[in-house]
Amino acid sequence: MNSNKRFTVVYSIVGTKKEALDKAKNICVEQTIEFPYDLVTDKYVKNTIVGRVESIKACGKKYMAAISYANETAGTELTQFLNVVFGNTSIKPGIRVEKLSPPAALLKKLQGPRFGMSGIRNLTGVYNRPLLCSALKPMGLSVKKLADLAYKFALGGIDIIKDDHGLANQAFSPFDKRIPAVCAAVKKANKETGATTLYAPNITADGLETIRRAKFAKKCGAGALIISPGLAGFETMRMIAEDNSIGLPIFYHPAFHGSYVVNPDSGISHYAFFGQLTRMHGADAVIFPNFGGRFSFTECECREIADGCKAGLGKLKPNLPGPGGGMTMDRIPYMKNFYGHDAVFLMGGGLFSSGKDITENCKKFRRVTGTIL
Amino acid sequence: MNSNKRFTVVYSIVGTKKEALDKAKNICVEQTIEFPYDLVTDKYVKNTIVGRVESIKACGKKYMAAISYANETAGTELTQFLNVVFGNTSIKPGIRVEKLSPPAALLKKLQGPRFGMSGIRNLTGVYNRPLLCSALKPMGLSVKKLADLAYKFALGGIDIIKDDHGLANQAFSPFDKRIPAVCAAVKKANKETGATTLYAPNITADGLETIRRAKFAKKCGAGALIISPGLAGFETMRMIAEDNSIGLPIFYHPAFHGSYVVNPDSGISHYAFFGQLTRMHGADAVIFPNFGGRFSFTECECREIADGCKAGLGKLKPNLPGPGGGMTMDRIPYMKNFYGHDAVFLMGGGLFSSGKDITENCKKFRRVTGTIL
Repeated sequence: MNSNKRFTVVYSIVGTKKEALDKAKNICVEQTIEFPYDLVTDKYVKNTIVGRVESIKACGKKYMAAISYANETAGTELTQFLNVVFGNTSIKPGIRVEKLSPPAALLKKLQGPRFGMSGIRNLTGVYNRPLLCSALKPMGLSVKKLADLAYKFALGGIDIIKDDHGLANQAFSPFDKRIPAVCAAVKKANKETGATTLYAPNITADGLETIRRAKFAKKCGAGALIISPGLAGFETMRMIAEDNSIGLPIFYHPAFHGSYVVNPDSGISHYAFFGQLTRMHGADAVIFPNFGGRFSFTECECREIADGCKAGLGKLKPNLPGPGGGMTMDRIPYMKNFYGHDAVFLMGGGLFSSGKDITENCKKFRRVTGTIL
Repeated sequence: MNSNKRFTVVYSIVGTKKEALDKAKNICVEQTIEFPYDLVTDKYVKNTIVGRVESIKACGKKYMAAISYANETAGTELTQFLNVVFGNTSIKPGIRVEKLSPPAALLKKLQGPRFGMSGIRNLTGVYNRPLLCSALKPMGLSVKKLADLAYKFALGGIDIIKDDHGLANQAFSPFDKRIPAVCAAVKKANKETGATTLYAPNITADGLETIRRAKFAKKCGAGALIISPGLAGFETMRMIAEDNSIGLPIFYHPAFHGSYVVNPDSGISHYAFFGQLTRMHGADAVIFPNFGGRFSFTECECREIADGCKAGLGKLKPNLPGPGGGMTMDRIPYMKNFYGHDAVFLMGGGLFSSGKDITENCKKFRRVTGTIL
């Protein structure tokens, strides 16, 4: 729906048709001039800068409004684009961002996922099945115990071993000690198996320390990175993704970001948030809570995420949906049927509860996912 | 409720008493070990690392659960503290963070507001009334028109003139041209009036450009800064607040942060989000939508914010609540009664709609706020 001069955002709005149309008109003003429309004297401001309701139609019990904005309101800054999309309107209940169609010039400027779905397949050599991921946990274990666990995971054929997102730089497992130790453990296992398991340390930290940790992890031989931009900032993730001196695949974690998606009538849709926004900020894979686990996401919402991860978005590569959060062995066949091969399945606690030998459990995870080790 | 070894978070939880208690117990695990509790063998992990329900009691239709966590789960990192507080639980509906009692070691490490409420009073010389703020708008005006507007605001006795949060670096008003022009206009007016009106440019931008803009603004003679950490990142705001080479008061703007507060049963309370979190991240003043304007905040929620801005939080200074968003002259007496003197009143569009002479309108704003110019 984008012209070459305006970009479009689709919002879902709660209310009667009249209420929805009034709210849509208010969005046009709130997201741009934030000023009494009748008092505007400048013609350029009045005719070009103010948003326009391009269409509004019923969709279930809500209304879908497509609103266009002049490209120059956002310029080519991602933060200002998001400001026009949802800055003040995020504070109004009953309005949800459903879908973004960013300006071409902005998409051209963004790198997006450096590796994306196909790049992660190339790095791991896994082409004919979903990828497997597990997490080093629980928080509180020593570096030695975590490294030992990583070794066992890698021997069992896990493709990506990530730090649990709660492992930061705590006294029980300091970052600068954990990363080299786990890297060495995974390297040893890879030598024995001939596989290329990747270790993704959690680099989420305060301020520029996040970037230092990314560089340190790269130096230690980490194969990927995990970051929670809800804590470290979306822009910090994008900077790391676009930094050629780092050049590792980025796994997005949703910690502290749930408030954007957890209410169906406000915030941002699963499609736009986990699909479009993570790609614009350079994530190569997107961890999210699968349906049927400890969290409340529905099958429909998870389908939206998988769709958003691969929908057309300028030159930006598709990234890899990573459902997790309470997964168990018995659910893998259903998940495989639901997501197909283009996903990374994340099993944490479930890997521990299916038997005492963790390496055997990993092998079982591989078997039920479709390929005999 | 903090011991010297554990810190406490109060959550409100939707459900029956039994459901609320079950959810509270789940939070204890989800926010720490994220691992089947019965499979934990390590005693330190089981007895210390896992969160503890310290109390749970009915409060209206919900339950308030106080949960304590070992200080070492967060260490002294603010991002990891927030991760323990609400990382994964942010993705679960029906649970809201109500109040934080951060570890003393973390509060000791943070600078908090450099100026805070009293520091901004010292900078502006305003002690006996609420401060007055207005915004340069609408988006789309040229640098010359914005500078002219700033001059008129300053002549009329506005204490703080901020960029509208939608002014970034667009072609119609590039940052590096706007800031020196508006600084010069405000300086000229200050010379004429003898007052010390502060100009707060909007520095929100992509990546490290936000920090560059802060430094550029300082160099141009800006008296304060406005930033939307929902876009640029809370950590970016904190870095700028704690940077001695910048050293300007920081005005927090809530753009793109609304999803955290807009639903009463999930996200984070107005008290904790606008009060406690903005102070931990160094904001000296907090712009938020006042009750009765274009937004939906209630009087009770605004009271929470004003309380959170000054409640005890280690050595962190109180910051200044900044209600705005659809304010008009006739509401000022009620606001003054509600907030008292310890606030900065933000009027944007309302200043334009009360007469053709903008400087006269500013003087009226000053008169109704309590001091004759």
